[in-house]
Amino acid sequence: MSILVVGSVGLDDVQTPAGARTRTLGGACTYFAAAASLYARVCIVAVVGTDFPQEHTDFLAARGVDLTGLQTVEGKTFFWAGRYGEDLNTCETLDTQLNVFAGFHPVITPELARSEYVFLANIDPDLQIEVLEQMRAPRLTALDSMNYWITSKRAALTKALSMVDIVFLNEHEVRLYAEDTNLIRAGRAILALGPKALVIKRGEYGAMLVTRGSCLGATFFLSPAYPLERVVDPTGAGDTFAAGFMGYLARLGVHSLEALRRAVVHGTVLASFTVEDFSVDRLRTLSLSEVQARYDEFRYLTHFQSLSATEGECFQRSVNECAPGATIP
Amino acid sequence: MSILVVGSVGLDDVQTPAGARTRTLGGACTYFAAAASLYARVCIVAVVGTDFPQEHTDFLAARGVDLTGLQTVEGKTFFWAGRYGEDLNTCETLDTQLNVFAGFHPVITPELARSEYVFLANIDPDLQIEVLEQMRAPRLTALDSMNYWITSKRAALTKALSMVDIVFLNEHEVRLYAEDTNLIRAGRAILALGPKALVIKRGEYGAMLVTRGSCLGATFFLSPAYPLERVVDPTGAGDTFAAGFMGYLARLGVHSLEALRRAVVHGTVLASFTVEDFSVDRLRTLSLSEVQARYDEFRYLTHFQSLSATEGECFQRSVNECAPGATIP
Repeated sequence: MSILVVGSVGLDDVQTPAGARTRTLGGACTYFAAAASLYARVCIVAVVGTDFPQEHTDFLAARGVDLTGLQTVEGKTFFWAGRYGEDLNTCETLDTQLNVFAGFHPVITPELARSEYVFLANIDPDLQIEVLEQMRAPRLTALDSMNYWITSKRAALTKALSMVDIVFLNEHEVRLYAEDTNLIRAGRAILALGPKALVIKRGEYGAMLVTRGSCLGATFFLSPAYPLERVVDPTGAGDTFAAGFMGYLARLGVHSLEALRRAVVHGTVLASFTVEDFSVDRLRTLSLSEVQARYDEFRYLTHFQSLSATEGECFQRSVNECAPGATIP
Repeated sequence: MSILVVGSVGLDDVQTPAGARTRTLGGACTYFAAAASLYARVCIVAVVGTDFPQEHTDFLAARGVDLTGLQTVEGKTFFWAGRYGEDLNTCETLDTQLNVFAGFHPVITPELARSEYVFLANIDPDLQIEVLEQMRAPRLTALDSMNYWITSKRAALTKALSMVDIVFLNEHEVRLYAEDTNLIRAGRAILALGPKALVIKRGEYGAMLVTRGSCLGATFFLSPAYPLERVVDPTGAGDTFAAGFMGYLARLGVHSLEALRRAVVHGTVLASFTVEDFSVDRLRTLSLSEVQARYDEFRYLTHFQSLSATEGECFQRSVNECAPGATIP
């Protein structure tokens, strides 16, 4: 299976409490491709300027990423500069230069149009619609968006939301779009537009998967984030989350509810690796076996026993009848 | 087993987007007692004024709560007034009148000193220390605190933290106390003072249990919060969380790591019920079977499969060899 990703490829200046990097490889499409290529073949549709370093193109090519959709246009590559606060939850944008990205128009070749999986990173919803209309028979389509499009191009975004299977938004975006502070109601409102699943990203607090269900009109899956002692650079966490999610599903080829849950955990794990270093640097050496090891560890960190027959009985009866058992180590 | 709880009993004026209540039953000790009495016998040590309505005392007595430690002093009962913002994450305190609570000094009778479980709600850490020094041979002790004591009585709080088995703090308090924005490092710093476990409360994002462990110096358990479509009044969520946690352990009589994890889930479930109505009103009708049903539901909401042998193999092999399986409903 191959995954088509459409979005930004750029160069970033990033400052975090852990340090700073200049003109480092960035962009939603880049993060997604670097991460999802661990799972499946990725085809990117994006634009760079003539200043884009060859080493970055070489890196993506070495990951097996199909670069036939990467346009090189006379001019400068998309540039973003930002500074994260001490607690890493705030980020001040210091500079944004769209450069060649301002005139970006995705070109979907007939071959790319046959991709089975599609991820539309955060770009103009009108472009997202254009891409979706060109796809032949995708098995699974997904999009990401942001506050800017929610407020400035609501009608187009609403149409795009109705055309995809999976929607990725952070919790603030979900509340903003649905005009409802309650995440359950807001999530249901977005599902009502047509998507089969909504993945609500909550940063350091994890993610919530909302799918259709008979009870309350939706079914939920809640996941915390993987706890990290040291976060170096949060940039790209959301895009690599989506990459882990889509990559896992593309590799597995199964889209059951249970597979979607495991996909959320793969997204969680991928994002946790990404933020351990600047840019896509941690992803350069990451292996699928490391991903699987952290998946298993995360399962241990989040699972608890049911009140099984024996325990439930013990719980119900007088506590004096229960053996004292082990104590806290 | 009986649980001793020391803290405030008060009357609250509360405004939330769902409505308002005046002079409703409040106070950390009250919320804890109303919730923990579902699981075990609760003894309260607190003070009220002569204006405290008899119906509230009757309510606690009807729950089987031991009121021998409840002092009635000439004067007015502790009073708090607050207004929650639209998203329920902010609360503006409009008025605080300590009244008889200003001169509160816990009196621990010899019988109360034999309580097996102790929960010290958010009061002056010097008073928490006094109570702990009077206990005979408690099986499990716990305390809660707040920003005010962290900044104004740090030395006393540090001593109190070193004397208990379990510490309940919210994530902001943990970061403030440890002077570290990273929750993993901050949690480990608090564990290093002596407690066997730290429960970090994260409001709508759930809770994190930190216990001693060989790896990284700590072992973690992460739990989201139970998702609610309608939150009426967040007051008392933290105290009923502690009540579910302590109540479950007291009823079970087992303090294994696995029991602590289930205790976190009981706390999560209890808090989710509490916020469904004003004051302790939801707790008035709540049954343990409702708690167990939501516990099971929460388990469904948070659990996911391992990459088991078959799936793992399928995941590793080419995706073409895998059956397509079910699709998203």
